[in-house]
Amino acid sequence: MQEFTKFPTKTGRRSLSRSISQSSTDSYSSAASYTDSSDDEVSPREKQQTNSKGSSNFCVKNIKQAEFGRREIEIAEQDMSALISLRKRAQGEKPLAGAKIVGCTHITAQTAVLIETLCALGAHCRWSACNIYSTQNEVAAALAEAGVAVFAWKGESEDDFWWCIDRCVNMDGWQANMILDDGGDLTHWVYKKYPNVFKKIRGIVEESVTGVHRLYQLSKAGKLCVPAMNVNDSVTKQKFDNLYCCRESILDGLKRTTDVMFGGKQVVVCGYGEVGKGCCAALKALGAIVYITEIDPICALQACMDGFRVVKLNEVIRQVDVVITCTGNKNVVTREHLDRMKNSCIVCNMGHSNTEIDVTSLRTPELTWERVRSQVDHVIWPDGKRVVLLAEGRLLNLSCSTVPTFVLSITATTQALALIELYNAPEGRYKQDVYLLPKKMDEYVASLHLPSFDAHLTELTDDQAKYLGLNKNGPFKPNYYRY
Amino acid sequence: MQEFTKFPTKTGRRSLSRSISQSSTDSYSSAASYTDSSDDEVSPREKQQTNSKGSSNFCVKNIKQAEFGRREIEIAEQDMSALISLRKRAQGEKPLAGAKIVGCTHITAQTAVLIETLCALGAHCRWSACNIYSTQNEVAAALAEAGVAVFAWKGESEDDFWWCIDRCVNMDGWQANMILDDGGDLTHWVYKKYPNVFKKIRGIVEESVTGVHRLYQLSKAGKLCVPAMNVNDSVTKQKFDNLYCCRESILDGLKRTTDVMFGGKQVVVCGYGEVGKGCCAALKALGAIVYITEIDPICALQACMDGFRVVKLNEVIRQVDVVITCTGNKNVVTREHLDRMKNSCIVCNMGHSNTEIDVTSLRTPELTWERVRSQVDHVIWPDGKRVVLLAEGRLLNLSCSTVPTFVLSITATTQALALIELYNAPEGRYKQDVYLLPKKMDEYVASLHLPSFDAHLTELTDDQAKYLGLNKNGPFKPNYYRY
Amino acid sequence: MQEFTKFPTKTGRRSLSRSISQSSTDSYSSAASYTDSSDDEVSPREKQQTNSKGSSNFCVKNIKQAEFGRREIEIAEQDMSALISLRKRAQGEKPLAGAKIVGCTHITAQTAVLIETLCALGAHCRWSACNIYSTQNEVAAALAEAGVAVFAWKGESEDDFWWCIDRCVNMDGWQANMILDDGGDLTHWVYKKYPNVFKKIRGIVEESVTGVHRLYQLSKAGKLCVPAMNVNDSVTKQKFDNLYCCRESILDGLKRTTDVMFGGKQVVVCGYGEVGKGCCAALKALGAIVYITEIDPICALQACMDGFRVVKLNEVIRQVDVVITCTGNKNVVTREHLDRMKNSCIVCNMGHSNTEIDVTSLRTPELTWERVRSQVDHVIWPDGKRVVLLAEGRLLNLSCSTVPTFVLSITATTQALALIELYNAPEGRYKQDVYLLPKKMDEYVASLHLPSFDAHLTELTDDQAKYLGLNKNGPFKPNYYRY
Amino acid sequence: MQEFTKFPTKTGRRSLSRSISQSSTDSYSSAASYTDSSDDEVSPREKQQTNSKGSSNFCVKNIKQAEFGRREIEIAEQDMSALISLRKRAQGEKPLAGAKIVGCTHITAQTAVLIETLCALGAHCRWSACNIYSTQNEVAAALAEAGVAVFAWKGESEDDFWWCIDRCVNMDGWQANMILDDGGDLTHWVYKKYPNVFKKIRGIVEESVTGVHRLYQLSKAGKLCVPAMNVNDSVTKQKFDNLYCCRESILDGLKRTTDVMFGGKQVVVCGYGEVGKGCCAALKALGAIVYITEIDPICALQACMDGFRVVKLNEVIRQVDVVITCTGNKNVVTREHLDRMKNSCIVCNMGHSNTEIDVTSLRTPELTWERVRSQVDHVIWPDGKRVVLLAEGRLLNLSCSTVPTFVLSITATTQALALIELYNAPEGRYKQDVYLLPKKMDEYVASLHLPSFDAHLTELTDDQAKYLGLNKNGPFKPNYYRY
Repeated sequence: MQEFTKFPTKTGRRSLSRSISQSSTDSYSSAASYTDSSDDEVSPREKQQTNSKGSSNFCVKNIKQAEFGRREIEIAEQDMSALISLRKRAQGEKPLAGAKIVGCTHITAQTAVLIETLCALGAHCRWSACNIYSTQNEVAAALAEAGVAVFAWKGESEDDFWWCIDRCVNMDGWQANMILDDGGDLTHWVYKKYPNVFKKIRGIVEESVTGVHRLYQLSKAGKLCVPAMNVNDSVTKQKFDNLYCCRESILDGLKRTTDVMFGGKQVVVCGYGEVGKGCCAALKALGAIVYITEIDPICALQACMDGFRVVKLNEVIRQVDVVITCTGNKNVVTREHLDRMKNSCIVCNMGHSNTEIDVTSLRTPELTWERVRSQVDHVIWPDGKRVVLLAEGRLLNLSCSTVPTFVLSITATTQALALIELYNAPEGRYKQDVYLLPKKMDEYVASLHLPSFDAHLTELTDDQAKYLGLNKNGPFKPNYYRY
Repeated sequence: MQEFTKFPTKTGRRSLSRSISQSSTDSYSSAASYTDSSDDEVSPREKQQTNSKGSSNFCVKNIKQAEFGRREIEIAEQDMSALISLRKRAQGEKPLAGAKIVGCTHITAQTAVLIETLCALGAHCRWSACNIYSTQNEVAAALAEAGVAVFAWKGESEDDFWWCIDRCVNMDGWQANMILDDGGDLTHWVYKKYPNVFKKIRGIVEESVTGVHRLYQLSKAGKLCVPAMNVNDSVTKQKFDNLYCCRESILDGLKRTTDVMFGGKQVVVCGYGEVGKGCCAALKALGAIVYITEIDPICALQACMDGFRVVKLNEVIRQVDVVITCTGNKNVVTREHLDRMKNSCIVCNMGHSNTEIDVTSLRTPELTWERVRSQVDHVIWPDGKRVVLLAEGRLLNLSCSTVPTFVLSITATTQALALIELYNAPEGRYKQDVYLLPKKMDEYVASLHLPSFDAHLTELTDDQAKYLGLNKNGPFKPNYYRY
Repeated sequence: MQEFTKFPTKTGRRSLSRSISQSSTDSYSSAASYTDSSDDEVSPREKQQTNSKGSSNFCVKNIKQAEFGRREIEIAEQDMSALISLRKRAQGEKPLAGAKIVGCTHITAQTAVLIETLCALGAHCRWSACNIYSTQNEVAAALAEAGVAVFAWKGESEDDFWWCIDRCVNMDGWQANMILDDGGDLTHWVYKKYPNVFKKIRGIVEESVTGVHRLYQLSKAGKLCVPAMNVNDSVTKQKFDNLYCCRESILDGLKRTTDVMFGGKQVVVCGYGEVGKGCCAALKALGAIVYITEIDPICALQACMDGFRVVKLNEVIRQVDVVITCTGNKNVVTREHLDRMKNSCIVCNMGHSNTEIDVTSLRTPELTWERVRSQVDHVIWPDGKRVVLLAEGRLLNLSCSTVPTFVLSITATTQALALIELYNAPEGRYKQDVYLLPKKMDEYVASLHLPSFDAHLTELTDDQAKYLGLNKNGPFKPNYYRY
Repeated sequence: MQEFTKFPTKTGRRSLSRSISQSSTDSYSSAASYTDSSDDEVSPREKQQTNSKGSSNFCVKNIKQAEFGRREIEIAEQDMSALISLRKRAQGEKPLAGAKIVGCTHITAQTAVLIETLCALGAHCRWSACNIYSTQNEVAAALAEAGVAVFAWKGESEDDFWWCIDRCVNMDGWQANMILDDGGDLTHWVYKKYPNVFKKIRGIVEESVTGVHRLYQLSKAGKLCVPAMNVNDSVTKQKFDNLYCCRESILDGLKRTTDVMFGGKQVVVCGYGEVGKGCCAALKALGAIVYITEIDPICALQACMDGFRVVKLNEVIRQVDVVITCTGNKNVVTREHLDRMKNSCIVCNMGHSNTEIDVTSLRTPELTWERVRSQVDHVIWPDGKRVVLLAEGRLLNLSCSTVPTFVLSITATTQALALIELYNAPEGRYKQDVYLLPKKMDEYVASLHLPSFDAHLTELTDDQAKYLGLNKNGPFKPNYYRY
């Protein structure tokens, strides 16, 4: 989800041909189920369930949880007014009339708002989960009750995972013409099992770094047989996933896990990309003294101008109270660094899976691990020194914080517009390649979110538009504009 | 010098074929001469002057001012250590050996450091001024004394202007093979008078928005006959010219002209591009309450997330204490707005020539203009209301503030590296087109400036570079990276 | 705990003569017990427990939890190095040798570090809890195991509460000569039951607003029969309890309860005292747009200079996303305000018990209350509008956030020094009155906490001290200095 | 004008009995005359001048400059709406009817607004200058033209200085009953020459640190024979003179003198009082990396919590780009420090006269001084190292920046209210002692300045006032409140 995760691990790439993607088995704290279902051990696949309209075209944990899930969806709708607004603006014309969308994403209240928006715009949807842990069972039940063909529950086995995807794709009398994927597993399955389906597919919309990487590989190898849209790298989504979201979640993640006081703390942040910039701005604002490490001289110079000392990690490792990685790189914090940290130093990762901190190097006999809270381990050296490791080096903001609904709204709106664009694009606009969202649609995503802030956009006069050589409705910036 | 000035006025474009460029006659406060030369009314063209080595291959105001100018150059060198460092690193190999550079730029102490760096790297240089007012006579004298063929003085006539350029290009036994231009007038002159010179020219390096625009027009028209490098849009230069420089100069420009207290002031900033972002950050930090107007929803959303209310100008025009334009647009502040401002409201422009504020609309009989200080006019309404107009709507940061030497160092280093790149590029790397500075060189410019901040860059290990798929020496980011 | 809580409610004052203080029954989230004791329903008063040394001079929930509690104490010690340092510095001289301290405070790991410090300095201690919910049973067990006469457990009845206090005061062969109180209940009990004890008491140290208020009342009434020290109003403690602590806890409290994104949110903060200043600084830094309401023109002017618009609540109540009270006043947010808030508006209190928001006015039949999370209620209007009420209007930072150990360290160190001062003060230095901590000791508390930040203090030369008319060791400021 | 200047130099104190005060001969950049009077060498004392109404009861440089001065006063009035508002509110009742005020202050446009306000409230005024350089001749002329008995001009000799004061005090048929002093010279003169005048004087209002110090000395010595009001230490004035004003003037002073870029600069600020806090906040906000030195542990702890490293000067002196003193102490920057600074290091003083930097130590033969601009000296070491010394170590904000009219408005309003209070106070309210401005009047000063910011104060309800135990009209805080 972070920048720079354009460079997945080898493991990740290898897994492509063998099994479900790494991201499909990541654990998610922010997508917990609301109600306790522990008493129910029967697999959903073995249950006979019917919704109130008599349909059993779904497979969820417990259809009876639908009402609770519906309330969650309604609450989510309050922070996703962009999608609601999109429903209203596009409803008359039904821009997705005739669209048959097969989707594979996290199934949460926010996703439900997206799915129901697609339906409201005319689409028929079949949906599975892109992660075996992240499904909110109540929300899945609510979708099923509302007539969406959803196949997903929290705690699927790997076999369940592929079975659900298969049930979405492989149905008599229904053939998908659009794919919405998050991670690339659905796309992978169609490639492997039902390549003929691509004859009808108008396009793939992919949200994740990993999935996008797979698509570019297919494209390079000449094997991409439909247009694909990389929504991960659209401007608006990037800023919210990285800069704006991390600015808040670094504070939240640290507080929830350690109750640390920020004022006066010395912190080193490894990497001054968008994620690093967000973390540093927030920490500085709350009175921390922040040091930066960087490999890129341009980002390093930005750090200087923003008031941070740029150092090598070794220069400050003995003195800092907190170490935060956001590089996308591996082994940025090594055992040698960990050995030199002072007592009570907190170490965490905001950047990229779990490679940035060499956690494996801490699994040696002389070190004692003590789990002091959920997601918080004290690693204890023979001399009594404790290093506080958060989320075992996995992403702090996903493991120990929550992603605000507003950020998810940006992503969902981007996905919806990408689907509309690909579905309605005239023949020839998109070839068998990977595309970025057109800037005008990126701007449209932004504009749909402005009312939340009661922000009032100024319109160009005809005269001004002519002077600037712009269309009054945008796009307003050249493609290389850096924002 | 600001962003968005990618869209020059029609006047600007028309002038291309008739006369010297608009920018050649702009007035500059920050490039004043140091010593009083008012007693000397003889035109330099009519003087016989010789430097201490007996050469008269130059034309400056007064060669005797050389010593004073040399001291200014030495002081400038202290803040331009990147160029000094470049001299040292590249001196052994003399990457510009054989280069014959004809240049046309502002002639200031900082430019002198650039010119003498080019010479140190092996080049022969002939130089004229790109602006009739901006030459520091003492610096020109020092360059002439040091053997540079410089033809420039403060207060040239238009005829002088072209004569000086001509003297640089048109010399028996010397033919330029590189052009360094700022504004495009030199390039234009060569096109018009000496098209054959282009047969030997390996490339043009152009720094200004206007000059770059001219080059793109030539390229579109198929008339560009050598490679050209657009250094204006390199990342490092852009950030310093706009975000970092304006963050400081908005405060400086307002203080020097009006002594206004920022705390508690209500300010509206029109445009939230890089210039606007810089202005807003500084004003907010000093306790002003800032409102934004924007036409671009993405920038508007950024403004929201940065804590600014996005409004239409009319919503706040009656209540604000300061109005600042940084849009690149025209007539952003109209007479109607000016009529509604409250007493003592300050109006100024950080954006683009003098079109943003409709100053012309204030030249009506019922309004009284009162010049209260240099660059400060009170425009007085019949009811006694005063609007404080700065620099008659021209660029505040050029008219009423100074550009720090460090910012000029960034630009000069970028120019030097662009010259080295174009001069040494293997056949075929660059065609007859306009290019951006390669990212690696942009990164090199940044890296040369890091020692000023005692910033220490981290180097990738082999293993990490392989993991990231990067060369250890950069470039470190994809071209579309937004910084 | 907040500023302005100098003005307790009538209820509070009335309760003085009848029953335990209001603060004794407040609920505390941050002082939860670590282990589950729900299976054990026997009252501690009925248990026979003995520690490993054979003593049964205590009454706690379960002495077997001592080991767990000891680890908690050890972890707390790591962030309370000021007390550890005090142990070392003062240990040789044992400044509390002979002191017999009876204490009544929250019993947490941090308090345990204080109590054990007092013991290390020579004191004998007997201790009870000042709140019926806040005792960490494991910590009480660890103290009992270590030989401290502690009488406290989580979930005391009111009868238990007074019984525990009585057991501390009323013991054959042991008579207290110092009182450390938090809330005034212990002091009240001694006044009521054992007035003769005061003959031996050298002084009372009181930490809470409520307790201090009671002491001033006693003093005014001429009934205070020993010196008392008001540590609540010492500079260092005030800044940490209010400005520094609230700057962090407002963000933490809002995030943990609502996951709200701060960027772009419109927030109104009622009251710009130290608590308000802290809240506003943090929210502004994270991109919120903050409005202030104030009754005091000086504070209002400060808000202006800090960049906030000062408004009446009615002017912005329809547009804000969050309402935060920190006034110390009552009915600042009325039902009328609540009726006008927009959907999803969050309302919370950082200021003073639960009087600031008129929560009672929301207990009407037409409004539906829905508990959506612990400490989060949705109050739903007939038209579907939801207002998000946090902690039912009680203190957000105590109910929904945690107080960092470092802040508690400041308080505990202040208490320790106040005890040392009162115990060792020469006859006549303190009369039967309420005193502030001497500035020199306040400075000493600060100096003991500087090493945590690796901060290095500069010492005056003799010459400079003479020039300034200061003692080289302080105090460094006049009493009226505002910091 | 800065905090801590409560401790004047010995020289300052000695001068009390001999001659005019040190502050009377300080140079002021911000109070320059507007028009050139260099052609007029006749002493005003020898001129015969008459205003348009035929009065010659004044002595100024040139009565003909009155019109120009009037315009300056009118412009100043626009930023001093508090005084204008005071004129309106108090005009009906004429609270100074019968007051005969003799004043001795800087004579600037802002002072003129004060004087004319006093007149509008009923007072008769006679006025002289408290500094021999700071009089704005045009303003003095405008006052004289308006009928004020003003005796002052720019460039007085010491003899002129006392002559002017004497002309104010010593007039047949007119005897002062109030004194408004700035520096204590007027008070001193009356004590020395006309002690009988004190029989009629109802009180002295003194604004300066030096003057206040003199008054406290008189009081201690039992020689103060009328009530005096120390307006220097009122809350509102202090905050504006120090924190708010210096936050802006540090940036302004550094830019105007050196054009330094703040981003990335390493700066050490000596002293973290109000002045230091203002400087640090501004510099940090603009991207500088700031270190603090402190002697007071409480201020040091504040610096930590605000995100600054607290160091000894020697730890960072080799690496910093700028050194700023704001301690009130002497020899904070010694020759040894200066010897160790790096090339181009800027050194300046924001704190207290010229003692903080040991400038004298730089007057040694091996160092070369080079004046590069007004107020800027390069001190050059034998090895070529240059240290940039600003204003020869005098106050940067007075020498190289301007004090905003708004700040002067705060002071002037405070003075006016102090005069009203002392003049109208019932017998016995004030004894022969030095008093601080009553908090309620301090609050009133603040409230008069709120309309400038369109700030709306909230009023307490009766019920709330009762609950808080406050009067609805203030004062709102206890005297020890720290703001």
